Amino acid sequence: MEERQENPVLGVLRRYLPILTWGAEYSRRTFGNDLIAGAIVTIMLIPQSLAYALLAGLPAQVGLYAAMAPLVLYAIFGTSRALAVGPVAVASLMTAAAMAPLATQGTPEYLAAAIVLATVTGLILLAMGLLRLGFLANFLSHPVISGFITAASVQIAAGQLGPVLGIGAGGENLLHIAKSIGRNIGQVRPLTAAIGLASILFLYWVRGGLKPLLQRLGMGARPADILSKAGPAMALVATTVVVWGFGLDARGVAVLGKVPQGLPQIALPQFEAGLWTTIFVPALLIAIVGYVESISVALTLAAKRRQRVDPNQELIALGIADVGAGVSGGFPITGALSRSSVNFGAGAETPAAGAFTAAGIALTVLFLTPLLFFLPKATLGAIIIVAVLSLVDLGALKRTYTYSRADFLAMAATIGLTWVKGVEAGLVAGVALSLFLHLYKTSRPHIAVVGQIPGTAHFRNVKRHVVITDPEILSLRVDESLYFPNARFIEDTINMAVAENQALRHVILECPAVNDIDASALESLEAINRRLKDGGITLHLSEVKGPIMDRLKRSHFLQELTGKVHLTQFDAVSSLKPDLARRTLESRRTPTTDVRTPDGDGQS
Amino acid sequence: MEERQENPVLGVLRRYLPILTWGAEYSRRTFGNDLIAGAIVTIMLIPQSLAYALLAGLPAQVGLYAAMAPLVLYAIFGTSRALAVGPVAVASLMTAAAMAPLATQGTPEYLAAAIVLATVTGLILLAMGLLRLGFLANFLSHPVISGFITAASVQIAAGQLGPVLGIGAGGENLLHIAKSIGRNIGQVRPLTAAIGLASILFLYWVRGGLKPLLQRLGMGARPADILSKAGPAMALVATTVVVWGFGLDARGVAVLGKVPQGLPQIALPQFEAGLWTTIFVPALLIAIVGYVESISVALTLAAKRRQRVDPNQELIALGIADVGAGVSGGFPITGALSRSSVNFGAGAETPAAGAFTAAGIALTVLFLTPLLFFLPKATLGAIIIVAVLSLVDLGALKRTYTYSRADFLAMAATIGLTWVKGVEAGLVAGVALSLFLHLYKTSRPHIAVVGQIPGTAHFRNVKRHVVITDPEILSLRVDESLYFPNARFIEDTINMAVAENQALRHVILECPAVNDIDASALESLEAINRRLKDGGITLHLSEVKGPIMDRLKRSHFLQELTGKVHLTQFDAVSSLKPDLARRTLESRRTPTTDVRTPDGDGQS
Repeated sequence: MEERQENPVLGVLRRYLPILTWGAEYSRRTFGNDLIAGAIVTIMLIPQSLAYALLAGLPAQVGLYAAMAPLVLYAIFGTSRALAVGPVAVASLMTAAAMAPLATQGTPEYLAAAIVLATVTGLILLAMGLLRLGFLANFLSHPVISGFITAASVQIAAGQLGPVLGIGAGGENLLHIAKSIGRNIGQVRPLTAAIGLASILFLYWVRGGLKPLLQRLGMGARPADILSKAGPAMALVATTVVVWGFGLDARGVAVLGKVPQGLPQIALPQFEAGLWTTIFVPALLIAIVGYVESISVALTLAAKRRQRVDPNQELIALGIADVGAGVSGGFPITGALSRSSVNFGAGAETPAAGAFTAAGIALTVLFLTPLLFFLPKATLGAIIIVAVLSLVDLGALKRTYTYSRADFLAMAATIGLTWVKGVEAGLVAGVALSLFLHLYKTSRPHIAVVGQIPGTAHFRNVKRHVVITDPEILSLRVDESLYFPNARFIEDTINMAVAENQALRHVILECPAVNDIDASALESLEAINRRLKDGGITLHLSEVKGPIMDRLKRSHFLQELTGKVHLTQFDAVSSLKPDLARRTLESRRTPTTDVRTPDGDGQS
Repeated sequence: MEERQENPVLGVLRRYLPILTWGAEYSRRTFGNDLIAGAIVTIMLIPQSLAYALLAGLPAQVGLYAAMAPLVLYAIFGTSRALAVGPVAVASLMTAAAMAPLATQGTPEYLAAAIVLATVTGLILLAMGLLRLGFLANFLSHPVISGFITAASVQIAAGQLGPVLGIGAGGENLLHIAKSIGRNIGQVRPLTAAIGLASILFLYWVRGGLKPLLQRLGMGARPADILSKAGPAMALVATTVVVWGFGLDARGVAVLGKVPQGLPQIALPQFEAGLWTTIFVPALLIAIVGYVESISVALTLAAKRRQRVDPNQELIALGIADVGAGVSGGFPITGALSRSSVNFGAGAETPAAGAFTAAGIALTVLFLTPLLFFLPKATLGAIIIVAVLSLVDLGALKRTYTYSRADFLAMAATIGLTWVKGVEAGLVAGVALSLFLHLYKTSRPHIAVVGQIPGTAHFRNVKRHVVITDPEILSLRVDESLYFPNARFIEDTINMAVAENQALRHVILECPAVNDIDASALESLEAINRRLKDGGITLHLSEVKGPIMDRLKRSHFLQELTGKVHLTQFDAVSSLKPDLARRTLESRRTPTTDVRTPDGDGQS
């Protein structure tokens, strides 16, 4: 739709390389805006990428590595103009969980496995994009992903009480972390805790109080907003200076220590069939969770400027970015909510802003890492806690409970299992439960017995309306497509209705809400037709949609059908009981009935 | 519904013990009819139960054991008046497949494992019945079960070429069996093959030729029909006499040998956690395949006499029958198609007929097993081959291909994987693929852009009709419930439509075919509403069903909605563009359009 009268090869190139489209229109003005946004995001990204690398159990510099190649690759392949990719909290926690059974933190094997994880995650996303399997992400229903983000965020925050208080607080689920904190709470290091808690208070004050203060001091709303996003960087600089100035590292405050200087080596990840196989499921989960979060941010930002995001190309772009993270020594990345919003708010117009951020990180890696030596780990813990607690949405539990019990159940199970068993168990249980509940719901569709409303040709649910029925005719309206999850339920319903009514001579299925009849349902209809025939009852259909009629004509069903297919339910009853249908149509309408009712049965 | 003004305890008892209902009306006439039917089924069942035990890799008498307790228990708990339960071919093959990795045929461990398999199968069915989880059987779509029965039948028939030709022809899938036959085809034993092939020819002649012959000789149609079902028993007697008379067992014809005399011991199956866990998945598959086949037979027969079958109570009855098979030394059983039809045709009026069959088998076990010594295994192989080849339905492949490509794919995958990898792989792949295709289909619902038909207040698909639209209004009709499999697709569709049309000011979703909006879809609608709002576009809904409106009122969506919810699509357009809607309504209808069209868009 977007390219008209164009060289088809160029069309394909443009589709897979969005940079060709925006790059062609790139101007000096765009460059200026992108550069400013890129610089602002860099200042946010430095502390976050260090913190998330530690959260994933990796050396701090790996976070910086994971923030370069992916940004450049996304700039080439991505379709969102404002998405900022890189390390994020939830994917980092999932990385730590995936690595735990494979290697010990701090060993070269652990780093090697993280690189493989990023690569496999990327290849999965890439394959989903190229094979157009993006709909697989639909398996992850909203209540499950929302519950999972809340559960993971609480768990991350709890775990970060460790560095913030200077105690051990590890574990693969909230239960373990809570026990570990309970055991070690006596060993809190006062200086570390002071830095950690002060950082948390400062970061919360920056969030809420800095922007109004700056505005009162005469700063514009937008620069004030952007400056207030630099809170983490300010905390980082301030606490590093304090630790360095007072020599607090010698008094028990854990610091980052030596962070290697220089760009990462580009190297293919090690291929070991066993590791790749074991890592597949966690990688798939990281890929899908990452994609779902990322596309949601991208769509939201694109809508604000009426730009277009191609979900399929996003899979490809994120996939390539993750592979890029892998081969440049990083770990799994995805689109980040907070940084993308800042990037957008700071005026980023194209993905080039991301490339400028990557350049900023490269300068950091090349020149600034020595300055990070005295950065207290407590500050990074505080940055993580404040960042993830903003993702916790306990209100969603209540909202979902009010709206849908089935969805609430899936959400609660995801949260509960994540906290008790860990992130993978929580996600898998949530997905399995939502599929199960979905199948359960569709396996029992609403089937209404309908009758004719006096004075009209309309047929309505006998339980809700005063209608005329005939003991020899059973009219059923099925409010669902007929397919394998419910095929047998419909058989059972009709069998039972027939067994209970010995006077019955005709069954009419009214199908206005039937959008599909699959082979299982066709088989059931044939069985229903045969069984009714054996009992001396004819089967009729009414209001069958055109595409379904076309399909039924390709089977033997219409030849075998003992009754007919009628255009309307009224036609069906008229052909069987002309007098009754006409008399009902012409009778005075009773005052208690109404054609259009609040329950919407009015449609048929 | 069935019990009125009755003691509630008695009601529950009657529900779980159908024998109380039919037993109370039992008469001498019913007794006579049931006795005749029971005797006829016994004559069919003796050769079949011996043959299916061998097919399952078990001693012949185990087949007889599995044909007693289950029939008696089903008579107490079953709701079908004519279902004949006991050993069947497909479940026997699945038993052999489940046992293969666990124990060696002919060992006590193998028999013990088969007993555990029957018990676990029974407990699964019982649990499904008591917990009302019968809808789980819906996972098995018709194309998958039909493909599976065809694949298993061909595989069983191929495997029986071994005993029929007197060669080794084993293997867990068709590929192995074919290779094994290819290797051993040089060692065919002529006498065995003569008996086997003669039996096959005789059995086919009995099927096709005996009944007309008997009728020509003056016999009535029904007795002729019933007598022609005794073919296997005749073949059994004739070939046994020939082998005994000519001493063919000494000349290389394999015979059944000593079959222990006497009733089976009742004993609890051994409990070994490891074995029970390993056996769970095969037991679940046997339970579901057995249930699906059994309920289908039961429903078909019940319909012929307008009787009622309770699918849930059938789970309970089959479960208890399978546990009964286990504790009385048998192996998994289910309702048998051929014997049930004969039972019904022979005039069985109540499940007591089954109990009489059980008594007949008990007499056989007590007194007749010595006569089975010279029964050639080739005859049993022939009986199996003729029985299972009648289950092969290759035409279903063609019919399904014509009707639905997705269903055909699931069916072909089931058949292919069963033949190449074995029964469990085939079934699991079929179920997984149908779920996958189901999710894929529902993840991309039909969404039509609609416009107003001149001269009417009706809105139709712009691609199929001459309609009036307005560049500022986008009207979309979604022909599917909105739920997590398609929530994001709808977001994407609207995002793309909006990005392509810069003049747009209003989006209207027409929802006559939307039967559900789950929490994921609600979240998507909220996101769509927010994003449209950011782009200066209002979102409206029309023709929302009552129950869905009730639900939406429990969320914040209606407050946040930038537009309104309109009763009809015409109301929606009228409120936005009163002039356009009125002018279109009053304009002369163009002759090329029609309110009710063959594609059924007429419903909205």
